Amino acid sequence: MATQDLANAIRFLAIDAIVRAGEGHQGVPLGMAEIATALYTRHLKYDAADPTWPDRDRVVLSNGHGSMLLYALLHLMGVERMGIDQVQTFRDFGSRCEGHPERDIASGIEVTTGPLGQGIANALGMAVAEAWLNARYGDAIYRHHTYAFVGDGCLQEGIGQEMISLAGHLKLGRLILLWDDNQITDDGSTALSISEDVAARCRVAGWHVVEVDGHDLEAVSAALAEAKADPRPSLLACRTTIAKGIARLQGQRGGHSGKLFPEDAQAARELLGWPHPAFHIPPEVLAPWREAGARHAAERAAWQQRVAALPAAQRHEFERLLTGALPEGWQEALLRYKREAPAREPLPSGIFISGEIGDVLGDLMPERLVACADLEAPTNHKRRLAAFTAEDRRGAYVHCGVREHVMGAMANGLAAHGGVVPLAVTYLAFSDYERPAMRMAALMGLPVKFVFSHDSIGIGKNGPTHQPVEILASLRAMPNMLVLRPADAVEAAECWAIALAQTATPATLVFARQTLPHVRRVHTDANLSARGAYVLREGEGGQRQVTLLATGSEVLLALQARERLQAQGIATAVVSMPSWELFEAESSDYRASVLGPAGGVRVGCEAAVRLGWDRWLGERGGFVGMRSFGASGPADVLYRHFGITAEAIEAEALRLLKS
Amino acid sequence: MATQDLANAIRFLAIDAIVRAGEGHQGVPLGMAEIATALYTRHLKYDAADPTWPDRDRVVLSNGHGSMLLYALLHLMGVERMGIDQVQTFRDFGSRCEGHPERDIASGIEVTTGPLGQGIANALGMAVAEAWLNARYGDAIYRHHTYAFVGDGCLQEGIGQEMISLAGHLKLGRLILLWDDNQITDDGSTALSISEDVAARCRVAGWHVVEVDGHDLEAVSAALAEAKADPRPSLLACRTTIAKGIARLQGQRGGHSGKLFPEDAQAARELLGWPHPAFHIPPEVLAPWREAGARHAAERAAWQQRVAALPAAQRHEFERLLTGALPEGWQEALLRYKREAPAREPLPSGIFISGEIGDVLGDLMPERLVACADLEAPTNHKRRLAAFTAEDRRGAYVHCGVREHVMGAMANGLAAHGGVVPLAVTYLAFSDYERPAMRMAALMGLPVKFVFSHDSIGIGKNGPTHQPVEILASLRAMPNMLVLRPADAVEAAECWAIALAQTATPATLVFARQTLPHVRRVHTDANLSARGAYVLREGEGGQRQVTLLATGSEVLLALQARERLQAQGIATAVVSMPSWELFEAESSDYRASVLGPAGGVRVGCEAAVRLGWDRWLGERGGFVGMRSFGASGPADVLYRHFGITAEAIEAEALRLLKS
Repeated sequence: MATQDLANAIRFLAIDAIVRAGEGHQGVPLGMAEIATALYTRHLKYDAADPTWPDRDRVVLSNGHGSMLLYALLHLMGVERMGIDQVQTFRDFGSRCEGHPERDIASGIEVTTGPLGQGIANALGMAVAEAWLNARYGDAIYRHHTYAFVGDGCLQEGIGQEMISLAGHLKLGRLILLWDDNQITDDGSTALSISEDVAARCRVAGWHVVEVDGHDLEAVSAALAEAKADPRPSLLACRTTIAKGIARLQGQRGGHSGKLFPEDAQAARELLGWPHPAFHIPPEVLAPWREAGARHAAERAAWQQRVAALPAAQRHEFERLLTGALPEGWQEALLRYKREAPAREPLPSGIFISGEIGDVLGDLMPERLVACADLEAPTNHKRRLAAFTAEDRRGAYVHCGVREHVMGAMANGLAAHGGVVPLAVTYLAFSDYERPAMRMAALMGLPVKFVFSHDSIGIGKNGPTHQPVEILASLRAMPNMLVLRPADAVEAAECWAIALAQTATPATLVFARQTLPHVRRVHTDANLSARGAYVLREGEGGQRQVTLLATGSEVLLALQARERLQAQGIATAVVSMPSWELFEAESSDYRASVLGPAGGVRVGCEAAVRLGWDRWLGERGGFVGMRSFGASGPADVLYRHFGITAEAIEAEALRLLKS
Repeated sequence: MATQDLANAIRFLAIDAIVRAGEGHQGVPLGMAEIATALYTRHLKYDAADPTWPDRDRVVLSNGHGSMLLYALLHLMGVERMGIDQVQTFRDFGSRCEGHPERDIASGIEVTTGPLGQGIANALGMAVAEAWLNARYGDAIYRHHTYAFVGDGCLQEGIGQEMISLAGHLKLGRLILLWDDNQITDDGSTALSISEDVAARCRVAGWHVVEVDGHDLEAVSAALAEAKADPRPSLLACRTTIAKGIARLQGQRGGHSGKLFPEDAQAARELLGWPHPAFHIPPEVLAPWREAGARHAAERAAWQQRVAALPAAQRHEFERLLTGALPEGWQEALLRYKREAPAREPLPSGIFISGEIGDVLGDLMPERLVACADLEAPTNHKRRLAAFTAEDRRGAYVHCGVREHVMGAMANGLAAHGGVVPLAVTYLAFSDYERPAMRMAALMGLPVKFVFSHDSIGIGKNGPTHQPVEILASLRAMPNMLVLRPADAVEAAECWAIALAQTATPATLVFARQTLPHVRRVHTDANLSARGAYVLREGEGGQRQVTLLATGSEVLLALQARERLQAQGIATAVVSMPSWELFEAESSDYRASVLGPAGGVRVGCEAAVRLGWDRWLGERGGFVGMRSFGASGPADVLYRHFGITAEAIEAEALRLLKS
């Protein structure tokens, strides 16, 4: 068996799967077959018998369209859930070999990729998690590499550039990118859209770069050894031929994803000397692959013994972190905060509350890693934390610079890696910059906490660029994203309890910049926010006539409007709605009891656009909120200017009562 | 008068305005005062008497938080709408001196800035527009520079890095960045988050870099001269001291936006030798500033004469482009397309329709500039266009590379510049990558056309990363963004007619990847889509019992469901809703006539989430759509799997009729 056959096994699994599926992206698996073979058979710390081994090397296919590369590798290594039946159903509905890789660790897929640049930013997060765990538990317990396959597109994307810059700054030496330098993108030659020397750009950012022939398996292997020995993050700039093996397409634009036909598969078999039928890997080729998949079995067993031999307290913590379990006492700590909050003077701002709860959690959860995009002071989440730096990996606060996008995707990588609980913090208006990463978190079901301050026109004079009005709606539109907007410190503690308990859903926690007076003054151990919406004050003096619904800083306005309506003898309830998603998940009976009778008067109030509110307001409902972007001016002036006041809520209720 | 006083005039306008406002960002105006003075008094082609002069040099304040720098400059130059009354009301509600600059060309503000990185990407677009117009009309008619003030944050942002890479590739020699290299960001030292040599990074990207002392006005002026002479885009790396002049804060973290007190203003007066009262610029300082503001008056007059002397046809076109008027015959061309479309065989895909209409418009509108993020073939908008390249500026198609964010912001810059009609094209799933730029377009009211293909699970096997489900809702949430999702080729032509006629609102045009069979077979000259929603087929056989509402590719399913319901004797109307915003703007009577009687049965259908639909469905309404992200598989399988079928619409209507 020639070594080359190991790489060709990848090629033909990819070709056969793509021909059968009728579509696919052959460029990557054919172009990176030797690179992947060098990595997997000679360097990767991986035991195919347990793709979930915590100290395994991580591999991310950032050029996710080349998914057949990953599927072929996992199948060849012997991952049980990636049997040939999966490869043979590539791109069929229900196959684990989906169009792009979808996170499924048991099958060996670390993260979902496809939108370019996300994967290498995830890899950055994995490398940060690994470095932090390594610093906490030592080389014997935690030390692995993080590899990512990457194409030109990932490196053109802004998020990719942010990743290059930040990884270089943080000197993440066990992070290694394998760049498929094939000089082709979807449009054709990379010369259409880029002139710079990518290797030089990475060197400027402090990377170790090795330029190598990507089809020379021995050279790639030597370069990998060099990369592993270097203290800087490494880029293997692998010069490759896209779609190598398909004579009709290789090295050309059509190599990327031009349709493959059975004749192409046959021609490739002749060109590469592969006489085997479709989907058949001969034993003499499969055996060394399976050996590669099993060669770290002993190391995994030894690692398990080293973990078992840790001092009890350390082992307990390590195992807790790996399983993602919350520390003992976390609920009590939040309950204590909730009990004491209503007595607090002076009244706290949303940001202050957010930071205070951060302290409560941080004291219990060393694994809470906070990433922030250059807004340390105004978002108030560094506080007692030390910085995670190139020199000291024990810190739990990552200064991300003004790079929101990589921050979000890094947080995804932290969560995907495991062992840490990531927060990503910035202003709500800038959530759009990290939105593609938030979408990936939702799609993967990663329990990242996306924390935002400055949640409305309440930020005042910095003006409309910094004032979210549409962003709550845009996040509520996202499947599997839990959006939480607490009205005061008590709800904030409840919302944090909800967010922490989520293990398969990211949470967005949104805080006002301005003061949030206490609206929940009577303590109850029950987490009222957990039902999504609840009656904060019932109507008095007869059957409820009006229901006022509000979130966050506008709950106070609803309470004030209620006083005005009650003074006129109108029984008015106030409903606080910290989370629509949770309320939607309640029974229709509960929802009806909160919303009040159908046909009753309901008025919603939120310093944001109406979109989505009609779900709760019904056909006759009124709404007090924003109809446009904001403006520059003091917060109180803006609230009046845009008509978001207790008086406006009252007027809307009265109008509807009369209509 | 010392030259230094010219710079200090900026400083004290900024200090006095910020002290009065009680907040602001002094770091930029105090740190860049000499740089700005060198640019404005010695290099800038600008006539303060007419800030709208088309051939003026453009200046973008990309570090928008330093807004007082721009306001001070415009006031000093003598822009009428920037009187001292405006400066004295900085950050008050209603002042033109808002917290961040808001686009207002008559006042000299070219673009809204604040979210970092957007401004320099806008400047890239302006430089592209200028280069294209220069190529078309020659140096005598169109040739100016584009300058941008830029801070560390803009250059850390991914969009900033995309801009650096693309501008270097396109060799935009008349684009000059003035970098405020003060080594401080909001968190403190830039060393917290970046290690790379920014100048070297720009050199790698093909930029001309001059490193200069930013407080040496003569040196900056010389560097500007050098930059203007160089054929590459230039970065002036200006080493500066943040907040220079405030001894207590300068060169420190607090210099960025730490609160300024009257004592600071007094101390600065003593330090800098500025004995003048607050907001007072002595005549001997104001006079040279006003001279600078007027020194291109003759050039502007000469330019007007050169334009007047152009051959009539050329002058007519040039003036049409500058005013943004549409060419004669554009409506007729779209009408012709609309008339012929229903006969087309084979049935066209959404992408094919989108490209075809592109040809119709492109033939009439040479000013239509198309930017695309490396998806030329699958989005189908290059077609007859030549590429805009470093070597040939006559092309109207910009290969942006895999850089959606800078593409969107570049398109904003093209529109803000004027003279061209920009389209930005990619897959709808990737709109999140350019969303921050789309928000800026909406906020500025720029008539950019954001064109998207691959609009739903209909894309099939590429899977959920590539399948929008929440994105229509997220875009409908955005104020001042017109979202258009045509159902077939006829509606597509109508939607394009609507989008083209918009001059103060961006439009999002969304196309299916899959085939869009003709649902509008009877020609009418009237633009039915212009009302946002309309009755496509009325119920037959009695009063309407059921109203089916749908958009885009789902309109066909609604028509099929209607057949099934009508066959059971249920009078069923189908409403096509290409644009919710336009429908919302109609009279309530019209809306009621389309939606059918209150309490009647309505079922919405869209291959997307429900959020927002309740506005149209009422309390009893039903909805057939997505409740989760998509999946990988053939489109028809996915539609069935997720229950988006004519049968499901029928079943929902029957269920509601019985309830």
